[in-house]
Amino acid sequence: MANAKGYAAESANSPLAPISFDRREPRPDDVSIDIDYCGVCHTDIHFAQNDWGVSQFPVVPGHEIIGRVTAVGPEVKSYKVGDMVGVGCMVDSCRSCSSCESGLEQYCAEGMTGTYNGVDRHDGSITYGGYSDKVVVSERFVVKVPEKLDPAAAAPILCAGITTYSPLRHYGVKAGDKVGVIGMGGLGHMGVKFAKALGAEVTIFTRSESKVSEAKKQGADHVVISTDKNQMKAVRETFDFMLDTIPVQHDVNPYLNSLKVDGAHILVGLLDPIEPAVQAGALVGKRRVLAGSLIGGMPETQEVLDFCAKHDITCDVEMLDIKNINEAYERMKKGDVKYRFVIDMNTLKNG
Amino acid sequence: MANAKGYAAESANSPLAPISFDRREPRPDDVSIDIDYCGVCHTDIHFAQNDWGVSQFPVVPGHEIIGRVTAVGPEVKSYKVGDMVGVGCMVDSCRSCSSCESGLEQYCAEGMTGTYNGVDRHDGSITYGGYSDKVVVSERFVVKVPEKLDPAAAAPILCAGITTYSPLRHYGVKAGDKVGVIGMGGLGHMGVKFAKALGAEVTIFTRSESKVSEAKKQGADHVVISTDKNQMKAVRETFDFMLDTIPVQHDVNPYLNSLKVDGAHILVGLLDPIEPAVQAGALVGKRRVLAGSLIGGMPETQEVLDFCAKHDITCDVEMLDIKNINEAYERMKKGDVKYRFVIDMNTLKNG
Repeated sequence: MANAKGYAAESANSPLAPISFDRREPRPDDVSIDIDYCGVCHTDIHFAQNDWGVSQFPVVPGHEIIGRVTAVGPEVKSYKVGDMVGVGCMVDSCRSCSSCESGLEQYCAEGMTGTYNGVDRHDGSITYGGYSDKVVVSERFVVKVPEKLDPAAAAPILCAGITTYSPLRHYGVKAGDKVGVIGMGGLGHMGVKFAKALGAEVTIFTRSESKVSEAKKQGADHVVISTDKNQMKAVRETFDFMLDTIPVQHDVNPYLNSLKVDGAHILVGLLDPIEPAVQAGALVGKRRVLAGSLIGGMPETQEVLDFCAKHDITCDVEMLDIKNINEAYERMKKGDVKYRFVIDMNTLKNG
Repeated sequence: MANAKGYAAESANSPLAPISFDRREPRPDDVSIDIDYCGVCHTDIHFAQNDWGVSQFPVVPGHEIIGRVTAVGPEVKSYKVGDMVGVGCMVDSCRSCSSCESGLEQYCAEGMTGTYNGVDRHDGSITYGGYSDKVVVSERFVVKVPEKLDPAAAAPILCAGITTYSPLRHYGVKAGDKVGVIGMGGLGHMGVKFAKALGAEVTIFTRSESKVSEAKKQGADHVVISTDKNQMKAVRETFDFMLDTIPVQHDVNPYLNSLKVDGAHILVGLLDPIEPAVQAGALVGKRRVLAGSLIGGMPETQEVLDFCAKHDITCDVEMLDIKNINEAYERMKKGDVKYRFVIDMNTLKNG
């Protein structure tokens, strides 16, 4: 009776392993998708290990999904069989609150439904993600993948990409702005590409001298070693924006002090208490802003894909056989990936 | 030889006492002012007591100055003898950086010159504030007091007023917005008046049930007891802006959670590390903003005085004989003033 297969964590301590499970019968507004590629996000690890205490096992991770449409419900208007499509971090929302009506479904007043570990709003089942051969998703939460994009390298745009693109757009980053990107992982390397494409002068902040040449290769105009006090002092009050992709606790104050008057420091990776404490004086004294941003809404997720096609932007990816997913997780924990693993789902289908 | 008199703290531990000192010979762009009134700001206490370790004694406090022009230098264009004028928190800046050129002298790249405890950019002397019979200030840092305003009640507009007006304008508070004002002191009570005049629906947050009727009297549409968890829960995600006037450490997280998507929490009173720690998730999850704001620039200081005249806004003040300044400080430390002491400078001149 199981109609789908995938890889799942059965508990916080078990490695990911093959699983068979049921995808729902398509509803009238559903698109059925045969998955070709799925990016591997650090969030996948947090849920597989139950780091946040909210995992519902089995967890089938994956929210950077690229595939082809195999069927559409009678109410589907924008997709047809054969289309190359994407599914990102969410598969549903209330659709009627002011955020949803503004195309900001990620800020839904009732909470968005995650692509995995979410609760289906219709039947109460737990959602399963993209480490799988197929998925069924309401049309509203599906995006078109432009033909020009390499579909494998496009997968991470659906999370790492939109997460960095959305705040740069929301804050109006434009030609001539000075943008700092903190962290050079999956999110950071996309942030650099977007900020450059928007015309900004981009500086990568990294803790390690060894990453300087790699940062330059990513297109950064400048690199600052954040652990070097003299280098940090030299850039005081020089930035318009900081895009902070670091997912663990770190001192934001040296970066706040690197912002000009009215500069904005935007957190996209951190969900924890901010420690060491934020210095209120650094905000008050120069009218600076400390802000956060969460992925992006569905219209903007389509926009970022189109933007990537127009500006020839793709993620730097390392293709992965799904059988090596647990090894990939270990490498990610050490920061050993440039810059995103993408699972080739043929390795599941043919494995 | 001393041409001025005032009240000064001679050390961190001494009470304020009469002092004679010299005001400078007017420079070509200077306005000489005979002081009628001076508001008493909490910052005055911090400097008199050297709370921040930067006081240069003797300290003559006072940066909410109202008086009449007695002489003008040959280059002065906008003022003439007899004009009623004001001087706020600063008396000079570099005048050429991008902040100064934008009329945001408070964010001067070289640092503004404070009205007291500042270093004069021309002769290196320490500036003395408004607890005095006269003052000499460059025209650029003088504002006109509209005839319609009661000059005594206008004094606190020059600090408490502009400090709350500026961020409300910068963030574009408009009719129908829901604004929370945290704290009901000199700053808070002005914030309520401005937010109401801008058409917002205003809620005062106070720790104490005993202040509810007073808050309503101030014009607040609603009052929330911030120590009541149920009341705080009831206002989750309902505010567009929070104007946070609290000058001591406090937990900002319950207020952040009271903001809608894209809501902004604006600190105008706090200069310390923000503890308990800010929850990054509260910023990221709803694209909220934590920001700061410092007084206001000279054009906006003129604007707020004109705004007050137009909307019949004045501070609620308690007039003070300068001989009672030390007693007033003690009362202010206990929050026992509604809402601002203003020194009647005749008590100095005739005392």
